[in-house]
Order: sequence, then C-alpha cells, then structure tokens
Amino acid sequence: MTSATTTATTTATIPEGPSTGAPFHTIALAEDGWAVDILDQTLLPHREVTVRMETLEDAAHAIFSMQVRGAPLIGATAAYGMALAMHADASDDNLDAAAKTLVATRPTAVNLAWAVDEMRRVLGSLGANARREAAYVRATEIAAEDIAINHGIGTSGLPLLEEIAASKTGGERVNVLTHCNAGILATVGWGTATAPIYLAHEKGLDVHVWVDETRPRNQGASLTAWELGRHGVPHTVIADNTGGHLMQQGQVDICITGTDRTAANGDVANKIGTYLKALAAQDNGVPFYVALPSPTIDWTITDGIKDIPIEQRAAEEVSWISGRTEAGEVERVCLVPADTAVANYAFDVTPARLVTGLITERGIAEASRGGLAKLFPEYGKA
Amino acid sequence: MTSATTTATTTATIPEGPSTGAPFHTIALAEDGWAVDILDQTLLPHREVTVRMETLEDAAHAIFSMQVRGAPLIGATAAYGMALAMHADASDDNLDAAAKTLVATRPTAVNLAWAVDEMRRVLGSLGANARREAAYVRATEIAAEDIAINHGIGTSGLPLLEEIAASKTGGERVNVLTHCNAGILATVGWGTATAPIYLAHEKGLDVHVWVDETRPRNQGASLTAWELGRHGVPHTVIADNTGGHLMQQGQVDICITGTDRTAANGDVANKIGTYLKALAAQDNGVPFYVALPSPTIDWTITDGIKDIPIEQRAAEEVSWISGRTEAGEVERVCLVPADTAVANYAFDVTPARLVTGLITERGIAEASRGGLAKLFPEYGKA
Repeated sequence: MTSATTTATTTATIPEGPSTGAPFHTIALAEDGWAVDILDQTLLPHREVTVRMETLEDAAHAIFSMQVRGAPLIGATAAYGMALAMHADASDDNLDAAAKTLVATRPTAVNLAWAVDEMRRVLGSLGANARREAAYVRATEIAAEDIAINHGIGTSGLPLLEEIAASKTGGERVNVLTHCNAGILATVGWGTATAPIYLAHEKGLDVHVWVDETRPRNQGASLTAWELGRHGVPHTVIADNTGGHLMQQGQVDICITGTDRTAANGDVANKIGTYLKALAAQDNGVPFYVALPSPTIDWTITDGIKDIPIEQRAAEEVSWISGRTEAGEVERVCLVPADTAVANYAFDVTPARLVTGLITERGIAEASRGGLAKLFPEYGKA
Repeated sequence: MTSATTTATTTATIPEGPSTGAPFHTIALAEDGWAVDILDQTLLPHREVTVRMETLEDAAHAIFSMQVRGAPLIGATAAYGMALAMHADASDDNLDAAAKTLVATRPTAVNLAWAVDEMRRVLGSLGANARREAAYVRATEIAAEDIAINHGIGTSGLPLLEEIAASKTGGERVNVLTHCNAGILATVGWGTATAPIYLAHEKGLDVHVWVDETRPRNQGASLTAWELGRHGVPHTVIADNTGGHLMQQGQVDICITGTDRTAANGDVANKIGTYLKALAAQDNGVPFYVALPSPTIDWTITDGIKDIPIEQRAAEEVSWISGRTEAGEVERVCLVPADTAVANYAFDVTPARLVTGLITERGIAEASRGGLAKLFPEYGKA
C-alpha cells in the first residue's frame, strides 16, 4: 500500500441504476475517491460482501477469481485497475506492466482488452503527473458509458412490455422468461436483458420474471434471482427444463436473454440452453428477444452456427455444485458417480430465424444483416 | 419377525437383465426364498446398499421413502409386499389390511394399485393355507412379466441402433441422448428407454449415451449414469441445457426417452424437459423415439397437452440438492437466495407430431391413434 494516504483524485461519479428496492453497485469509487469497491460475486447469493480494491493486484485478482464477471463489468474493473496502478506509480514502465498484468487475467474477454487498450491510449500521451487524474476520469467514463448503453437498451425494450401489459384486459401480470444472468451483476448498472424489466418495474408495470436456474453454473438461481429480489421485482426460479411447458400453457408472454456474441447475420451465441428456449418460443408463438450492447456484435462473422467457437469448460462445473448447508456454511458437493465422464459446453448458438428482434441501445433491430445494418450503418455494410 | 424360521416358499425366480459389466438387481428374492432384497435407490449414486425386506411394513416403507421408484418396480415391490404379509399371516383380515397399507404409500401410482388388486384377486379365492406359496409365485410372475415386456421393448428398438451403426461407414460410435431415468432402476430389469441400448451393447455395438442430468431431481446424473456405468456402457453426463447444441453439431444420432403416460393420440407425458429435446431433435432432423410398456398408454385421453394433468412438486426439490462432499459425506445444500419463490413442474407433454415413433414390446408404433391401434387392436378402436 504505497498510496493509502494520498487524497482523492477525481470527483467523477458513476450514474445510478434502477432505484426500486435496495439498490446496490457492482463497482463504485470508495468515499476516499481513489480506492474502488466491488461486490464479491463469488459469494452470492449466500453472502453479500463488498471488497475494496486498493492496488492493481487487487483488480487483477478480482477479475481472475471472478469476484467480478460479465464482459462490461470486467471492462470497467480493468479500467479502474489501470487507475489504481497509476495511483501507485504513474511511470511509463508501470503503465506497460499494469496493462500486461490485467490482460493476462482472462485472455479471451473482449471488453477487458478493449478497456486496457483504451486506458493506454488515453494515458500514454500524457506525462506521469497528469496520468492519475486522467486515469480515474476515463475509467469512470467507461463505467458511465456502460450505464448509458444499458439504459438505452431498457428504453428500447420497454415498449414491448408496455404493449403486452396493455393487451391484458384483466390487468394480469406480464410474464418474462430469462436465461442466465444478463443483469446488473454482469454490468456496471441496469444489465442488458434486465434493463427493460427494471424500467417497467420502476414505471409500476406488474412484471414477473421466470428465472431459469441456468445449469451448470446456476447464474440464474444465484445471481439473477438475487438482483431481482434486491430491486423488488417479482420472480420465480425454475429448472431449465421447465420453460417449454410454461410456454405451452400460456404462462410466458415474452423471452428476453442476453448474448455473448452476435454474428452479423443475427445468429446469437449465448449461455448453453438459450437455443432450446428459442425453439419452444417459436413452437408456441412467444416472442423471443435478445438484448445486446452494440459492441457485442461481431461484424466479421456471417454464420454463427458454423463460425462461433463454443468454449468447453471444466467437467467439475457440472459434476460439483456449491450451496448453503442447513447450518449456513457454503459447501461443495458432487452430483455424479465417481469417475463419470462429463461434458461442459458453455454456450450455444440460436439461429437468427428464431429471434424475433435484437434490442440495442439504438432501438430494436430485425435479427438479420439488413436489420442490423439499418441501425448501425457505420458497420453494417456487407 | 414371526417368520424368520419358516422355510422357503417358492422356487420361482426372476429372469436376468443385461449381462455386461457388473449386473445388479433392483429387487430379488433373498437366498432364504422368502425375504426380498432391494437396492436402496435413495442412496445412489453415492452408496450401494442392499436392504432386506422381511415384513409388509418394510415393503411399505421402501415404496413410501422411494428406496424403490419407477412405476414397474413399485408394482413388483408391492406384489412382494403382499407376499411378505401372507408369509407372516395369511388370514383374510391380513390380506385386506396389507392391501390398504400398500395402496396408501403412493396413492397416484397406477402400477401399485394394479399389482395390489391383482394379488388380492389371485389370493382372495384361496384358503389361507395355499396363500403363502401362491403369493410368492404371482409376485415373481409380475416381476418376470416386467422383465419380458422390457426385453420386448429392447428387441423392438435394437434395429434402430443397428441401422445407425450400419450407416456409419467409418465405424463411428452411435450416439444416443436420453433424459431422466427410464432404466433398469425404474423397473425389475432392462429398463424401457435403456433396453435397446443394453441389447446393442451386449451385441458389441459401439453405443455411447449422452445422459441429461435431469434437474431438478437429477435422475440422469445419479441413476442413469450409475446403471450405465455398472454395465460398462460408455456415457457422458451433460447439463439439460446441452442437448440442442449437441444436435446442432451432429453429435446425437437418436433420442430415446421413457414416458409416464402416453395419450391415445400419441402425445407423451414424461419428465419435465423432454419436450425441449423433442423440439431440438425436430429442428435438426434427429429421430426422437419414446420407449414404453403398453400399460402406460392411457386410451381414455385423446389430447395429451390439454388433458394430462401436470403434477407440481415441492419447491425444495429445485432449491435444495444433495451430493457427496469432499469428505465423502452426503450433504444437502440450498442453491437460491433465502425466501426465493420457486416453481417445480414435474412433467411436460411432448406433442405426437414431434415423436418419430413409440417403441413398445410389440414393435414400433407411429405416434398417432391409428399407429397405436394397429399394434394394439384390442384397445385402439376410436
């Protein structure tokens, strides 16, 4: 701790997310103005612990150990990690070393590399004396930009929920089904798939969310359920197997999921199991929307099913699971016979033909090259 | 224990199931010829414990506590429960009392009521002296009939796997996907969906099974994986979310599931999530078969989606899960935030249009009233 006694370097602030219930921040400047507080997501939903990051190493550890996760939140954490590094030592050498350390934490995360490069671009041209202040300003801008994009997604998607509500002559609740966590916890605020839901809830719509537990890592049961609960949004956790039955029985009005990567033709790579829900939605005439910040569109990929590589992860994520014992301890248990072969595919690709629309910060695009090009003419030329 | 010193009352035996690997019995007469051994399924896959039933109460407890489960196995256990009751006291009063006790254990199980009624029918007309022997003979016949039906399903379904194997010019393995446990552990032997698989494996076909873990009760990960392992059938456990991706990537040649109830029009009620796999199979041109003993056909129901009631079970089955700790203890852990609403639908209905065929002990039927009537003309008249 070389810098525990220095004064705050910026007054920039991150805008707020949804205001209902008991709001929280995934990442925020500490009251001293230079340390950075994060919510430790590895302990959710069993413990709510805020961790203070005071060094570059703290930030690298937070990303590597998945105390923070979700592409936008990783990007913001990396940006603040660069600021913490500059706070300790604003030399050229340390700028290089910090960038290297952060990028190595999760090598495949696009937002991480982008945020680190952006910080280097801004800071590289400045003298060491100006870097501290500039680093905090730019990191906070990056965080604020995420909030603005997600709020824009919410604004784009809100009318979909309002239309459904208006069509219910008896004032019945609007039932949304979502998969995985494309929520506040994956971002700096609002989330992507959850942004229209939080906006609708703030406006007083009677919206209820079916939360797929999302095996194997259970981001739905542990993260989405937790954050919806914190904001007072009615929700029900279900096994991933359940959505088809609910749609068959008219209990789902709309599906909204996030995406990890969207191909230029509108194919959507998202958490494994998304494709099954899209099939059920089509079979039952339920609209299936995908919410995305435009940076997750990969304009270089024209066939998602053929060309988006699907990560295979450790078998242990399927065969072992963590939870809270009766005694309140967090314990890991094995679910399969000893020595059982297990496969763990992390994502699947939902073909564009099953996607009703892509909810972006600029509006809703048809899931096609033409649809995307209309909203993003600067990228969308074939 | 009134009867520990009496001699064996029958020499009838249950035929064997598949012979590869390390075969086991779900239920079997003990070597003394009157007690009955069951495999305690509540402890699988973590412990393999055989429980000896010596009294009616033992049998009732085994059914109630789900030491045995699966409709055919419950039926056989109830039949032996009646035999154990007669072994202790073959009076008319005890015949009535035993029937009442057993039927009350799981009131909705069709095979249970059928087996108890059948035992009463056979024993009611006999004098008390003849009942002991007759009870064991009929119980063993009921068990043997289940084995015969399931072996018949296997014989009907085997050519499907042989055709796939023959079509693979490079000798690649045949990949079957199954959901839940429609295996030996649900029956007296062979299982239903697993019967063609065990027969194929015995014949030397290179068959591999993708085992859906089958949340929330995880019958796939804990039971199907265990019994396939015991018989040496290659298999891989996957999260329920995975099947769509595997089919999209050409890694599934055929789906075979069981069914809890089949409507006269071919609609199939089975474990929640079956419908999602059938949709993915259709979307990818993968044949989707359902294996069933003909007694599970409900000739009175003509629209499965409208008319088959779907059981809702305890939320705890979704929010809590059992497994083996690092220390080898079996422990229960909670997966969701405290006070989270959870819904638990046990089954869904797969419409006949998604079912390639119904594999029965008489052959493969088209999933339609006409298709079923052709194989079962005695019931199938509209």
